[in-house]
Amino acid sequence: MARSPWSTKLPYLSLFVLLLSSSCLAAPNSPWMREARSRLAKSSQLSGPLSKRYANGSCDASGPVDFKAPKDNVWSGLTDIEAANVTRWLFLHSGLNLTNSSKAGEWDNTLLLVELNIPNKTDVLPYINGNASAPDRWAHVTLNMRATDEPVIADILVGPLPIDNVTTTWVPLEYPYTKKSSGTIRNLDADSDTTAEFRCNISATISDITLDLWNGTALCMDNDTLSIWGIDPVWQYDGKVTRWVQYWNYPTEELDAGTLLPLGLYFKTDETGRDPANWKFEGWYYNSVFYETTEAFREAYYSEGFEKLPANIAGDWSGTDRQGEASPMDGMPPPQGVKPGPARYSVDQEAKYVEWMDFSFYIGFTRDRGMALYDIKHKGQRVLYELSLQEALAHYAGSDQHQSGVAYLDTFYGFGPYAFELVPGYDCPTYASYMNTSFYVDEETHTHINSICFFEFDADYPMQRHSTGSYVANTKNVYFVVRSVSTVGNYDYMFSYEFYMDGSIKVTVRASGYIQSAYFAGNEDYGYQIHDALSGSMHDHVLNYKADFDILGEANTLQLTTFVPTTETYPWHDRPRNTMKLNRTLITSEDAGQIFYDGNGATQYRVINTDKPNKYGEYRGYRILPSEGTCHLTVQDSNNLEEAVHPFTHDLYVTKQKDTEPRSCHPYNGMDVYDPMIDFSKFFDGESVEQEDIVVWFNLGMHHLPHTGDLPNTVFTTAHSGVQFMPLNYYEGDISRQTRQMVRINYDEDDKGGKAVVKTFGAESVAECSVDMSVLSPDLSGYVGDVIVRKFPFDPNEPWEETDGCC
Amino acid sequence: MARSPWSTKLPYLSLFVLLLSSSCLAAPNSPWMREARSRLAKSSQLSGPLSKRYANGSCDASGPVDFKAPKDNVWSGLTDIEAANVTRWLFLHSGLNLTNSSKAGEWDNTLLLVELNIPNKTDVLPYINGNASAPDRWAHVTLNMRATDEPVIADILVGPLPIDNVTTTWVPLEYPYTKKSSGTIRNLDADSDTTAEFRCNISATISDITLDLWNGTALCMDNDTLSIWGIDPVWQYDGKVTRWVQYWNYPTEELDAGTLLPLGLYFKTDETGRDPANWKFEGWYYNSVFYETTEAFREAYYSEGFEKLPANIAGDWSGTDRQGEASPMDGMPPPQGVKPGPARYSVDQEAKYVEWMDFSFYIGFTRDRGMALYDIKHKGQRVLYELSLQEALAHYAGSDQHQSGVAYLDTFYGFGPYAFELVPGYDCPTYASYMNTSFYVDEETHTHINSICFFEFDADYPMQRHSTGSYVANTKNVYFVVRSVSTVGNYDYMFSYEFYMDGSIKVTVRASGYIQSAYFAGNEDYGYQIHDALSGSMHDHVLNYKADFDILGEANTLQLTTFVPTTETYPWHDRPRNTMKLNRTLITSEDAGQIFYDGNGATQYRVINTDKPNKYGEYRGYRILPSEGTCHLTVQDSNNLEEAVHPFTHDLYVTKQKDTEPRSCHPYNGMDVYDPMIDFSKFFDGESVEQEDIVVWFNLGMHHLPHTGDLPNTVFTTAHSGVQFMPLNYYEGDISRQTRQMVRINYDEDDKGGKAVVKTFGAESVAECSVDMSVLSPDLSGYVGDVIVRKFPFDPNEPWEETDGCC
Repeated sequence: MARSPWSTKLPYLSLFVLLLSSSCLAAPNSPWMREARSRLAKSSQLSGPLSKRYANGSCDASGPVDFKAPKDNVWSGLTDIEAANVTRWLFLHSGLNLTNSSKAGEWDNTLLLVELNIPNKTDVLPYINGNASAPDRWAHVTLNMRATDEPVIADILVGPLPIDNVTTTWVPLEYPYTKKSSGTIRNLDADSDTTAEFRCNISATISDITLDLWNGTALCMDNDTLSIWGIDPVWQYDGKVTRWVQYWNYPTEELDAGTLLPLGLYFKTDETGRDPANWKFEGWYYNSVFYETTEAFREAYYSEGFEKLPANIAGDWSGTDRQGEASPMDGMPPPQGVKPGPARYSVDQEAKYVEWMDFSFYIGFTRDRGMALYDIKHKGQRVLYELSLQEALAHYAGSDQHQSGVAYLDTFYGFGPYAFELVPGYDCPTYASYMNTSFYVDEETHTHINSICFFEFDADYPMQRHSTGSYVANTKNVYFVVRSVSTVGNYDYMFSYEFYMDGSIKVTVRASGYIQSAYFAGNEDYGYQIHDALSGSMHDHVLNYKADFDILGEANTLQLTTFVPTTETYPWHDRPRNTMKLNRTLITSEDAGQIFYDGNGATQYRVINTDKPNKYGEYRGYRILPSEGTCHLTVQDSNNLEEAVHPFTHDLYVTKQKDTEPRSCHPYNGMDVYDPMIDFSKFFDGESVEQEDIVVWFNLGMHHLPHTGDLPNTVFTTAHSGVQFMPLNYYEGDISRQTRQMVRINYDEDDKGGKAVVKTFGAESVAECSVDMSVLSPDLSGYVGDVIVRKFPFDPNEPWEETDGCC
Repeated sequence: MARSPWSTKLPYLSLFVLLLSSSCLAAPNSPWMREARSRLAKSSQLSGPLSKRYANGSCDASGPVDFKAPKDNVWSGLTDIEAANVTRWLFLHSGLNLTNSSKAGEWDNTLLLVELNIPNKTDVLPYINGNASAPDRWAHVTLNMRATDEPVIADILVGPLPIDNVTTTWVPLEYPYTKKSSGTIRNLDADSDTTAEFRCNISATISDITLDLWNGTALCMDNDTLSIWGIDPVWQYDGKVTRWVQYWNYPTEELDAGTLLPLGLYFKTDETGRDPANWKFEGWYYNSVFYETTEAFREAYYSEGFEKLPANIAGDWSGTDRQGEASPMDGMPPPQGVKPGPARYSVDQEAKYVEWMDFSFYIGFTRDRGMALYDIKHKGQRVLYELSLQEALAHYAGSDQHQSGVAYLDTFYGFGPYAFELVPGYDCPTYASYMNTSFYVDEETHTHINSICFFEFDADYPMQRHSTGSYVANTKNVYFVVRSVSTVGNYDYMFSYEFYMDGSIKVTVRASGYIQSAYFAGNEDYGYQIHDALSGSMHDHVLNYKADFDILGEANTLQLTTFVPTTETYPWHDRPRNTMKLNRTLITSEDAGQIFYDGNGATQYRVINTDKPNKYGEYRGYRILPSEGTCHLTVQDSNNLEEAVHPFTHDLYVTKQKDTEPRSCHPYNGMDVYDPMIDFSKFFDGESVEQEDIVVWFNLGMHHLPHTGDLPNTVFTTAHSGVQFMPLNYYEGDISRQTRQMVRINYDEDDKGGKAVVKTFGAESVAECSVDMSVLSPDLSGYVGDVIVRKFPFDPNEPWEETDGCC
């Protein structure tokens, strides 16, 4: 049975198979599907499930009103009809020789993805800046071309849309990639089922040992009690495909926690080519000893004094449910946010367009990268053309081959399909509004309900304050958040974009969920021992983002301004003075475009427009401030990633915007790490980035050294990273002075009868209404999580028509 | 007229005189005093002014209940009676020759401070750890000994308390200081009134010029329209006292904004010694030209072609009130936090002791440093003996002498007296609880009402989450905040200590208020031009904190664990691999105790107890993570600070805990920068810090390069710094698993009729009650700000008896 790449591919994803197949198990007319459909039908009401209008003295807590975006969203994806028609067209196009995913074998060509091809910026600008019509729409299609000895993943374009039988064509999609191979990259995993069987056969040769050690076997049987999975990407040196796998326990009760259960026995295979006859077993590794043959391992195992190491077994320690002694007051209701008035933002659900205060933006959503923001404007002026995740790397290390060999590139799995429904009151406040997301898999468009949320939040501290002996001035800090969460296997990534009244924008990622741990033997130099036979495997998370700034137009420059110590002689003093001054540098060429942040935060990084100074001659711009701890990759020359490493080696990059360089990473980069689809280092070819349309690429991330506090799950308070974009000399003063949510209290006016004079600025009072607190205890029984509504084959008259089973 | 040092001292503080005198103007029986007294009398009810119990279906939002701390608070300060009695005793002690502040001249000895002498840790431990009685109480008294040619500030101890006429003695307080001078340091500012007059006389010699330039004069007259103030500390090289001052405009309407109005004319004086006959005028500086004499300046000024530069004048741009166009929806009520249940923490107001969930701590409060926390325990086990601000440095630079010469050491002014009443709904949520603070000035104990707040807050993101295809587990992130705000002149420092359910503690400082700006002429290399004739003067904020960790006892060690790239050869591979591993180091001696944070966040800093490994042999400890951007001082060898610079030059320090080294800084360090009262560098004398009682000193801070967005005020979103202490291998798992505020939603159970199964864990629901939203619109007319209740001479029967005027 073939699976699309987002649902399985590598043994690492054995978890995913379980995870995703569960959602597929819901029958078309099951209660689940009915609930999900009913929720989907309601979503056009815009507000979250918990917003309601109150009557009779209750506060008006209504959701955002109907609203029309100024322009169509040219980034938001294909319509269901478009995707269905492209799919139909491709299957009719016999030259591609496509087989339906549900019927395809390893030697069949299948369709992996039908999505909007994000249009070129240069084609979009005339549309969003002026009166030009929207650029042509093309579908970006990914094909799994396996009916050949040299299987490839192929990106093609189909269009222009809408499909017709005369003008529609397909062409290889090559222009966004540095690899010149007509949009193809080799598929090292075409035979994932056969290779899995090959490994199970190896495992079968030592079933006596796995039974003896762990009372279990890994034989590719339904009743396997062990799983075997390992490095990702596979090793590709010397033109070979080398794989290392490890035995893992399955969790005993809950579905998850599997990544906490390594068993410390590893084996190596050579899986080069498509002919199983050429595949080779190459050795066992156990307790720091490498055995080249099964015979050698077996002999050692049964010899006297052979040390059998303990197993990692699931238990309370690996479960997320409440445990231990709760504090006496912990059961009482804690404070929570409420929304006593109508939503103060506007959402066009169809156009995926949002306005909050002086900000506006469009939302895009793709399989690879999940949510992206486009055309972010403040006060009607674009600040960012695009702000989007590019790739999330998790690079491990260890004394064993498994940890040493892992460097997950998560867009391979895709952030889009794993953006599940958000939990109101937990992932987002109870009063949040939501948007659905769609993704394509197995020739179908699927929808996750309420998987992006929007909400305002009143920070626990003000935006501004100042006291004197006679008055205090104080401004609320109300900000706006757009959020999605993608659970890529073990890790839950929470992506937030925050907007502030001072014009600043914050990008954060937080990580929770299960760590991928290591077996403890020999891993003392790579982590802490955190459970009986468990090591918290050291790893770097590095998440590459694209920030295509347009500061007062496209011609921009990155400026570095550094606090430097200096000894200066001044005309007013007879001796030199130890002091400091500013050192300003413009990044003028891509040759200087790969940047490490200075130590001690000494340098400010700022995108400016030197053609548009303010009235004092200073350049207007936005500062890029790593505000919550960021990092780049420790292993700059990683053998796991080779030429796919480049987007992760620095903190900040600046390149010239080119339609041919829209993204820093390709989801299949791991298939050819010596010659990846996108080799980011090739972006840096000496072009000018001085007053050009420039793109800033930056990394969020954290060095993660798991400790006992990561059991069962990493907590968000531990694992977070953020960068803040702040207007700097962009406006003539602090733009947050425009808000009405402030107060000045004069308290020295003796003649006012002992009362302070409270000056307000037009903010409406909610003193007269009350809020039904049931909003703080939402009924979560309608939660449908990963249940997805399938929409293909699409019939406008029968939108809920199902295909014949999904898996 | 003499003033105590906290209210004036340096010309910089001309603002303060205005600021503070306003509060003093309230007559003893004015409406203000009545309001303030009435609020003070109510404060024993514990809850904030906005917490109330609801009846008839309303939620129970009551404040914390009465509660008794397990021990007396030995750090909380003197009682009013103690302070009054010590004051009385000192005035009766004729050898000190004290004069009442209200009557004293520059050649009189006065009393600056009567406070609790914080007891030695070694004396306190037997009390808080066991059954020993509390250590003796002594008063720490600061005297301004000016009736001499060599005036000094003198610290003495008076005690033991209570005062009696037989056993009470005073002794010089020297043991906590590295300077061996019987607890004294020279007072360079004894003649502040006379020197101000001296400078006004110089100013008078060019009144024609100041009138011509700015239509104003600075003559020490009540109707002065200009002020002159400058460097701090004064220059002390070559045994001289050299001062540079600058002319500044007064704000025209609002009281503040004065620090935005420099005028760019500077002069230099030699004010060495107490004999005015020896004081000298030494030159003018204007528009980058130094004139050694007034004649030279005058001649240039009236010569042809002399360039007269523009002035900085207050206006809308310098006012904090709302201005510009508000967004259409901005007037509607934003979301806010409510507390639908009773307070989930306990406060002993008298003992200043707080318990929240598994945390407990005592609060101390001093003139110099404001709020401090002591004996912070988690689950009954001490984590920190003390966590407290030590000093806040603001170090400027510029091409002019004024900016070049400024390096404010703010404890000189004191954080305690400037911790004003907090504004509910702005500084803290409307539902917060409050505590009053007391401080001593002019022989009186004063109180600021509601100047520390406590509240729980539900973060906008959860503590933990994990999704699978069948369930989602999610935990609320409810944290607890203790906060005070001190406005030291132009800047408002918001100090917060946050406590989290995972056992972590976060220390943050945020800065708002007015920047101190520079005149723009010649300052291009030191800041941006941000207004007509204004430069945003570059400066470093560095705030030194003490964190006396006790991890499972006092014997602790600081460990550094670093992610290092490496090339390794493993037994399982035939070629070396580029990967990474951990490098662990213990700081064993104070010689290695001054630490810069590693670049790229590569190193984890952790206080551990190597005698108490966990069951896996790993050391239990707390990690120190700079979580929101920190910095150390750019100018490592500052001529402004000389030997007073040392607490600010590094990110982290570790020393052996000694009763003789309780603090890193003395408030009068600036009086003798070549030989300060506490030279922090002398703490590092080679002692072992391996499994000793160690103290960690760390710096928060930010390089501040003011831009137009800092006008009128710096916003908190720009200026913030924080460090997080996180348990690391301290517990066997994530301790936040103990909370009831979590949910698990199973949604793949087809047989449940289309509803998810929602598993809760004992959290009470508030679905049945409603909250009166008037709590979100508090009546702020009762705000009394800096109005202070005076309590000396103290008579238990007449606590409100006033002295005869205050100024």
